[in-house]
Amino acid sequence: MARKSSEPIQFTIEETIGVLSTTANGWQKELNLVSWNGAQPKFDIRSWSPDHTKMGKGITLTNDEMAALKETIQAAGL
Amino acid sequence: MARKSSEPIQFTIEETIGVLSTTANGWQKELNLVSWNGAQPKFDIRSWSPDHTKMGKGITLTNDEMAALKETIQAAGL
Repeated sequence: MARKSSEPIQFTIEETIGVLSTTANGWQKELNLVSWNGAQPKFDIRSWSPDHTKMGKGITLTNDEMAALKETIQAAGL
Repeated sequence: MARKSSEPIQFTIEETIGVLSTTANGWQKELNLVSWNGAQPKFDIRSWSPDHTKMGKGITLTNDEMAALKETIQAAGL
C-alpha cells in the first residue's frame, strides 16, 4: 500500500546502543535500534538533535548487514 | 565559500573495505573510504549502484567515530 509522501514518517528509538560523537550544538551521531512506521526495529546509524525530534541522514542496517559490518571492521583491523 | 547547490558533488571511492549486502538489482551496501569534493577520505557506509555512479543515502564517519562504532559493537556483543 502506497504511503503519501506528505505523511510523516513514524519512528521509535527502541534502544540507544551507543553514541559515536557529539557536535557543538548537541547533535549526536548514534547507533540505535529504530522502528520505522511500526516495523521490526533495525540497526540505524544517524545524527539526532538533542531531544531526538529531528534527524539527519543516516543508514539502516539489517541484522545480517550489522554482522557483515562487524566482520569487515575486524578483518580490516580498523 | 558557499558551493552552489547546482554543482555536482565530487567523490572518489578510495578503497572498498567491505560489502555488507547486495540487492536483487545489484545495488550494494558498502563500507568504503570516500573522498568528498577532494577532501581527506572518510569512512562511508552507503548503498551504491552496480557501476558506482549512483548512490543512496548513507553516513560518513570520521576515524574517531569509526573507533567508537567498533567499541560500541563490541561492548554490545552484537
